[in-house]
Amino acid sequence: MERQSRTESLRTINNGGGGRAETVTAPATITIKGILGLLTENINNNGDEKRVISLGMGDPTAHSCFRTAHVAEDSVLDSLQSHKFNGYAPTVGLPQTRRAVAEYLSRDLPYKLTSDDVFITSGCTQAIDVALAMLARPGANILLPRPGFPIYELCASFRHLEARHFDLLPQNGWEVDLDAVEALADHNTVALVIINPGNPCGNVYSYQHLEKIAETAKKLNIPVIADEVYGHLAFGRNPFVPMGVFGETVPVLTLGSLSKRWIVPGWRLGWFVTTDPCGMFREPKIIERIKKYFDILGGPATFIQAAVPRILEQTEEVYFNRTNYLLKQSSDLCCDRIQDIPCISCPHRPEGSMAVMVKLNLSLLEDISDDIDFCFKLAKEESVIILPGTAVGLKNWLRITFAVDPSALEEAFRRTKSFYQRHAKLV
Amino acid sequence: MERQSRTESLRTINNGGGGRAETVTAPATITIKGILGLLTENINNNGDEKRVISLGMGDPTAHSCFRTAHVAEDSVLDSLQSHKFNGYAPTVGLPQTRRAVAEYLSRDLPYKLTSDDVFITSGCTQAIDVALAMLARPGANILLPRPGFPIYELCASFRHLEARHFDLLPQNGWEVDLDAVEALADHNTVALVIINPGNPCGNVYSYQHLEKIAETAKKLNIPVIADEVYGHLAFGRNPFVPMGVFGETVPVLTLGSLSKRWIVPGWRLGWFVTTDPCGMFREPKIIERIKKYFDILGGPATFIQAAVPRILEQTEEVYFNRTNYLLKQSSDLCCDRIQDIPCISCPHRPEGSMAVMVKLNLSLLEDISDDIDFCFKLAKEESVIILPGTAVGLKNWLRITFAVDPSALEEAFRRTKSFYQRHAKLV
Repeated sequence: MERQSRTESLRTINNGGGGRAETVTAPATITIKGILGLLTENINNNGDEKRVISLGMGDPTAHSCFRTAHVAEDSVLDSLQSHKFNGYAPTVGLPQTRRAVAEYLSRDLPYKLTSDDVFITSGCTQAIDVALAMLARPGANILLPRPGFPIYELCASFRHLEARHFDLLPQNGWEVDLDAVEALADHNTVALVIINPGNPCGNVYSYQHLEKIAETAKKLNIPVIADEVYGHLAFGRNPFVPMGVFGETVPVLTLGSLSKRWIVPGWRLGWFVTTDPCGMFREPKIIERIKKYFDILGGPATFIQAAVPRILEQTEEVYFNRTNYLLKQSSDLCCDRIQDIPCISCPHRPEGSMAVMVKLNLSLLEDISDDIDFCFKLAKEESVIILPGTAVGLKNWLRITFAVDPSALEEAFRRTKSFYQRHAKLV
Repeated sequence: MERQSRTESLRTINNGGGGRAETVTAPATITIKGILGLLTENINNNGDEKRVISLGMGDPTAHSCFRTAHVAEDSVLDSLQSHKFNGYAPTVGLPQTRRAVAEYLSRDLPYKLTSDDVFITSGCTQAIDVALAMLARPGANILLPRPGFPIYELCASFRHLEARHFDLLPQNGWEVDLDAVEALADHNTVALVIINPGNPCGNVYSYQHLEKIAETAKKLNIPVIADEVYGHLAFGRNPFVPMGVFGETVPVLTLGSLSKRWIVPGWRLGWFVTTDPCGMFREPKIIERIKKYFDILGGPATFIQAAVPRILEQTEEVYFNRTNYLLKQSSDLCCDRIQDIPCISCPHRPEGSMAVMVKLNLSLLEDISDDIDFCFKLAKEESVIILPGTAVGLKNWLRITFAVDPSALEEAFRRTKSFYQRHAKLV
């Protein structure tokens, strides 16, 4: 059967482990887009007329309630129409763009970043590649969260870095298992990665927990890579605290972008920042190497870069507040509806980002073998796309993206409930 | 002295050879932007009031006569204003963009490319990285032209590929020394790179020479990487023939972009194309690996991608003809003025691209030690930026970019002549 063979191919991909990059073999890692693509193909093949609802990807641009700020669009339009930014930018980014990002990030830090600390990237994805490629050396390993964001594993595989995983603890609000971090690290460990606000878990770390992470990294003598692509998207108990606040304790590489806070993931405007007031990453040879690496990267469009200073300076608080309000509303709706469906449960209410991890209770289901089976059957029968937890490192969990129009979210959960009822184990 | 120390640092960079990428050491290769940056800093330090004229970089957007097509700007504006393309594109590119590039390139091929052959990149630079990263394996080497484009060397260094150089022959219109290619290749050779129309030489290869290149590569059992970023910018004897015409003889990877033909290098819209009708690169594992590599790349902005089909279909011939006419005029002007300056000579009149290589005759100069010294002194004394040939692999040559406003070109040569007269050896 068509679906069966796709499920199998997914398992094959997944079971391969972290193979090294070879000329003809793809790294044996999975990507969210890859799995979502397989799930979507599965829908397209069934001839069903139901509207597809995706709770699969952190890209809310399909939903009219999530719209970028007018000033963001106007700035890019003006920049393009000025005809002044059709040429090359320096490969590390336009000076005014680097300066604007330095000022923007410095607002929340106890020290000031400079333009030299900021390198403009083609989205946060390229910032991840820069961080990993710059730290890679023969025999090196990197500590990654589980659940996490599989681009890290894929990138580590291409850049010849061994990925080692520490757990995030659902019972502790998805905090880092710092004992596991200490146990995993050795003299070949080059960095510890945290994603805060959390993807896929929707958690936001407290100041105190970030401080403990910094102290652990300091003890291990490794820098922290802080993926803050969801920076400021925090709507719960804990305010967003950038990891760079602890830059004097431990060197931090901060990765971010316009993608999520400004809801323009397709603009591909991100940054790689050495949030490192003690200057470990300012050693001339390191800076030289980073600059040369940028010479072989594509980088974002110059006219989009040129719009960044105005976007960062002039976007109003009301825009940000509205987005967080919408995310809070839809995450609450999500949690409420999850409570209506016995086979899934949410151990930690989301407080930030755009996604939440929910646990699948297979013992309540008749004919569902695991999370992948659940998601493929749900896609086929109900045209609802949810990411299997396996894709982010947790088997028999699901990642649900709640940055979705509320009516679509309601409908998706109505269908998921009906799916559950059809597949529930008879007692 | 400040200038002296910069010149020295350039020499140090250049003399390092092709070192392997290490954690803290920058690859010991040079980049055009790096050298131009040093030359420009050198000007800024001298307090001179002369307007800086750069014949250094292949980016004519600073000159009002070189302007992109209206349809190109309008298409991107419309795409942005539609609000439909702020979200993620598939990492390999939007389907309609891949299809449009396949159709565009197929116009000049004896077979049809499909969307699956095309991967959208962040400019041609990222396409270079994809090609080299995909071919790299332990112990592998790649054959690069000398003179060439130093991003290849830098990228080879980061991706652990040994660079081996074959000469382009000025006396034969900068044709490839195919005997040298055969002598350099061994069982670890993964590809042969050609840049046509030529950067830095301004040559355009004949159908017959391209056929010979294809036959040589076939004999050596290696694919050809055809860098056609200057594709169709041909205004001399030879029409532009894409290497893909010989795709049935040997698999070709075609690299290109909107950057040069549409004069929008800052838009970062390029392509990596398997011009390979026999399907060597269509092996599922290879395709899988290429797709995964794209998952870790940034890629160009979605709304720029969305504009590509209209740009490729609707740009009128008159626009292209005008650009080639302007390039022909300015390259002729360039050659005429070179004849007025005894210490430089042009062995092959440019027929395409935006640059030409000229030979420096040091025996006619009093106090100039080499091409680097020439360029630093010219920048300091005359605020004219010309790239030393060392940067592209030919010591005591110069690369002159002629895609410049004619009046600026006139003025640059006037100053260069005056520079020559001051430094001429007394006979």
